[in-house]
Amino acid sequence: MTTIQRIHNFSAGPAVMPVAVLEEIQRDLLALPGVGMSVLEISHRSKAFEEILARAEADIRTLARIPSNYKVLFLQGGASLQFSMVPMNLLGAGQTADYIDSGSWADKAIKEAKKIGTVNVAATTKAENYARVPEQAELKLTPGAAYVHMTSNNTIEGTEFKTLPYVGDRPLVSDTSSDMFSRPIEIDRHALIYSGAQKNMGPAGVVIVIIREDLLRRSIEKKATLPTMLNYAVHAENSSLYNTPPAFAVYALGLVMKWLIRQGGLEAIAVANERKAAKLYAEIDRTGFYRGTAHKGSRSLMNVTFRLATEDLENLFVRESTGAGLDGLKGHRAVGGMRASIYNAFPEDGVDALVSFMRDFETKHG
Amino acid sequence: MTTIQRIHNFSAGPAVMPVAVLEEIQRDLLALPGVGMSVLEISHRSKAFEEILARAEADIRTLARIPSNYKVLFLQGGASLQFSMVPMNLLGAGQTADYIDSGSWADKAIKEAKKIGTVNVAATTKAENYARVPEQAELKLTPGAAYVHMTSNNTIEGTEFKTLPYVGDRPLVSDTSSDMFSRPIEIDRHALIYSGAQKNMGPAGVVIVIIREDLLRRSIEKKATLPTMLNYAVHAENSSLYNTPPAFAVYALGLVMKWLIRQGGLEAIAVANERKAAKLYAEIDRTGFYRGTAHKGSRSLMNVTFRLATEDLENLFVRESTGAGLDGLKGHRAVGGMRASIYNAFPEDGVDALVSFMRDFETKHG
Repeated sequence: MTTIQRIHNFSAGPAVMPVAVLEEIQRDLLALPGVGMSVLEISHRSKAFEEILARAEADIRTLARIPSNYKVLFLQGGASLQFSMVPMNLLGAGQTADYIDSGSWADKAIKEAKKIGTVNVAATTKAENYARVPEQAELKLTPGAAYVHMTSNNTIEGTEFKTLPYVGDRPLVSDTSSDMFSRPIEIDRHALIYSGAQKNMGPAGVVIVIIREDLLRRSIEKKATLPTMLNYAVHAENSSLYNTPPAFAVYALGLVMKWLIRQGGLEAIAVANERKAAKLYAEIDRTGFYRGTAHKGSRSLMNVTFRLATEDLENLFVRESTGAGLDGLKGHRAVGGMRASIYNAFPEDGVDALVSFMRDFETKHG
Repeated sequence: MTTIQRIHNFSAGPAVMPVAVLEEIQRDLLALPGVGMSVLEISHRSKAFEEILARAEADIRTLARIPSNYKVLFLQGGASLQFSMVPMNLLGAGQTADYIDSGSWADKAIKEAKKIGTVNVAATTKAENYARVPEQAELKLTPGAAYVHMTSNNTIEGTEFKTLPYVGDRPLVSDTSSDMFSRPIEIDRHALIYSGAQKNMGPAGVVIVIIREDLLRRSIEKKATLPTMLNYAVHAENSSLYNTPPAFAVYALGLVMKWLIRQGGLEAIAVANERKAAKLYAEIDRTGFYRGTAHKGSRSLMNVTFRLATEDLENLFVRESTGAGLDGLKGHRAVGGMRASIYNAFPEDGVDALVSFMRDFETKHG
């Protein structure tokens, strides 16, 4: 397997996976050990799959030290469907939901919530092109809000909350899709966390929802009217087996969780992520040839965004880096420039290769 | 790879996949040829994935001869979410949707539709334990119905429509999850077809929607209120790339489509399916020891359901067959008995093995 040519994948998601996980998937693809069928073929009602699901949940609980009064759900439709499911389940008639507008994805979540109920934008940095996340002092929260929604890491703009906002006794809901399990997470300060898998947890096709049990009451009250597939309580009562789950994505995610535990868990991976990001930001800041787009206090450890003096030079950078085996460095089409996504599974030697390429590029074109 | 022990998988879904497809997935798991990244890692915005998606759609169009005024969508949430999306998109205020109640899944579709709008059950065989599908003469259709919903194959009860019902100019919507591409399909007599992949098309995690373009107008009118992720028009306009699709499931489905084309397409696979099912039904009918649960005129070629004289004998059958490497023959918990699911990829020698086991079992216990 070492003869296979792999390149450095800076994609924002779907994104790089640990090679050890890919190798295990490959090894067992035709038949799971002791099962005699591929993981792609086994019934979701089989003992083999039930064990895969239970193991994945147990490992998630271990990694993030999830308290027992939280449910872990494996759903479909990605974070994009959660933009609707959150207000459909949690926002009652006559209530207001507070949203912190910290980036393009937060803005999408707001647009979907407005279709369902009343939304208060508690703070926004849109006028600053989302170059930083809002500060605590800027938050205008609603007394008795149904919940407060935040986006922990802004994939497109390359910013990240360094501490959780203080929201009093309002339930805090967080979209953690692009920095989930990249660092320790204070589960018990959240009421609901959702996270698409395809950045830090596995392949596309599954989204994790961690929900505090008392919130399920709101979903139970809506059973007669809310579509069954969109009701958190139904999925919780059926341990994510109400309908056929995305079995392979759950399996692969489970293997990534095991890999994370082998790396030393969230504390250890956070140290590695800090080190990788620090190398890249140091290179960006070294001479002024590159320009980081995020305010220093908001810089993401997962998505490192930077620009050059002209768009022509940026296009050249993307072209030459791709040619050098550094793939996916073009920034999101909404903001331009460059973006290096360096999730948990992105190897440090890939960061070193990019830093080295950046130096050479500056020497040639600076 | 031939040393890997595989058993006969009669599961109703997720279900058996072609070994050739599994081998190709395994071969390229670490890096797609010429791409340098695993299919689990590539961006859904990459040229490589766009080609995978376009190729899968093209092969589906070839196989089923889909007219150009139909869109093919790759969505998440399975048929279960389609139970809600169909009425959310197609059923307007003041309109009625007709539903043909032919089995447990049709019944679930009805329950979800009733949450959204007005439903007329056009015919039902529930009182007969769904042992047959309703006949044309039994249908009580609503003049000007928003659509007529049917379930082409009833996975749990083992029945199948042999011909499409005549519904006049009402749009016909069909859940074809458990017999999709098992035989030629008259696309142009349908307005919308939806089909979870995990029985005849690939692994769990993707559902195909084939929709006639004129129906999209209804979805376009609802853009301001319907959640974006639940709007067919949004997915059609974005060629199934509005959000991150379940990339691996789409890839695997595409490989199954290529395999189907290599088998000779739908006409050829239908011949093979007829032959496999005929062997099994002949054994069921041979002496009366086994009892088929579906009326002969409604017998499914995909899910063959049968019973024995007592539940004790049925439990023994399931236990002994599992021990003999014939897995998944226990009937759905809602109806009991036995069920042999023999989808496209189920090999004929597996049917022969089951027939042989049934003869031995009858000799021992008859």
